[in-house]
Amino acid sequence: MRDIFHDELDAINETLLRMSGLVREALTDATSSLLNADLQLAEKVIAADQIIDDIQHDLDNRTINLMARQQPVASDLRNLVSTLRISADLERMGDLAHHVAKTARMRFPNSAVPDLLKPIVTDMDRAAAAIGEKLSTVLQYRDTTRALELDKDDDAMDNLHRNLIAALLSDDWSFGIETAIDMTLLGRYYERFGDHAVSIANRVYFTVTGEHVPSE
Amino acid sequence: MRDIFHDELDAINETLLRMSGLVREALTDATSSLLNADLQLAEKVIAADQIIDDIQHDLDNRTINLMARQQPVASDLRNLVSTLRISADLERMGDLAHHVAKTARMRFPNSAVPDLLKPIVTDMDRAAAAIGEKLSTVLQYRDTTRALELDKDDDAMDNLHRNLIAALLSDDWSFGIETAIDMTLLGRYYERFGDHAVSIANRVYFTVTGEHVPSE
Repeated sequence: MRDIFHDELDAINETLLRMSGLVREALTDATSSLLNADLQLAEKVIAADQIIDDIQHDLDNRTINLMARQQPVASDLRNLVSTLRISADLERMGDLAHHVAKTARMRFPNSAVPDLLKPIVTDMDRAAAAIGEKLSTVLQYRDTTRALELDKDDDAMDNLHRNLIAALLSDDWSFGIETAIDMTLLGRYYERFGDHAVSIANRVYFTVTGEHVPSE
Repeated sequence: MRDIFHDELDAINETLLRMSGLVREALTDATSSLLNADLQLAEKVIAADQIIDDIQHDLDNRTINLMARQQPVASDLRNLVSTLRISADLERMGDLAHHVAKTARMRFPNSAVPDLLKPIVTDMDRAAAAIGEKLSTVLQYRDTTRALELDKDDDAMDNLHRNLIAALLSDDWSFGIETAIDMTLLGRYYERFGDHAVSIANRVYFTVTGEHVPSE
């Protein structure tokens, strides 16, 4: 009975890992569609969000069924409850990639991002990709060292976000209000993507160690 | 044994109801602090967010303990899992009120909202208060009719949000980029507050009826 439980928990964790790969890919593709005004790629990301939502839905059903059948207690139960939380964060990260792609689609055939800001958006995308990659390692190996690092990686994202806002506020800004609104929301989507990754990493840390992340 | 379970589930639902009152009050106060540049009120909302977070933390522990001790199955288990989701949405609604209050504090002694836009922000606050009040009814009475109505109430919020963006984009806009950035983010906070309420209402509907909200 214990083996069935842990086999199924492993399978659930593998699905979380797969979701983390999908949301990372979604944001990379969404950024590419945004910077290159690539409508086809934007549509691909928008359509793929339903797949991520469906995986989460299925995963939650599997988790609840496993709870009902195996009646775990103590750390097994906490582990299983935490997968519900992690899948919700991953689903939300997928939504944020979807928002980026919708912005790309809305401004097509133009790019929502003026050339001047493309380097910052590229940097935010790279920071998100690095965060997403480390998050996959955290999920795969329950790596608490890397889980702790993610908080600092997210500080880098927050700095980029501040640079972006500073660029919008500079006296040189000549792209008008609509672009400022787009960039404000885009900046928030990348920032929130990082926040959700940190939230997942903190949860893995807690599940493994039984303690909250020190800086919290 | 069944009675203990349902007594504790009732107590958990009462705590959710209390949280919904707190987040509604937090947003109302945050809006007031924003429109009147009331630093003291903003600080009150910012400090109170920790209380909401602590309630959620405690609630989740109670929920997981109840699962472990009573080993519910079928609808009882689904009910209990849904309280974990609902508390997470409520906690996030508290965060959004907190963001509004932080914007008020950041711009003090000025108001972040120009006089021209105060009516729209007042309307968004009223829409949020109406949504929050109905949400409390949905939580208290498991009222599926009102749960369905919340989706439409949130459409009103989305319309106000569109009006706000249109005002920022009008040729008359003379308040500069910083105010446009503030208003873009504020608009998003109110909009997301409504989204989380709809998400909770949909979950209550599903828990009571066993079916997803038709329009989903």
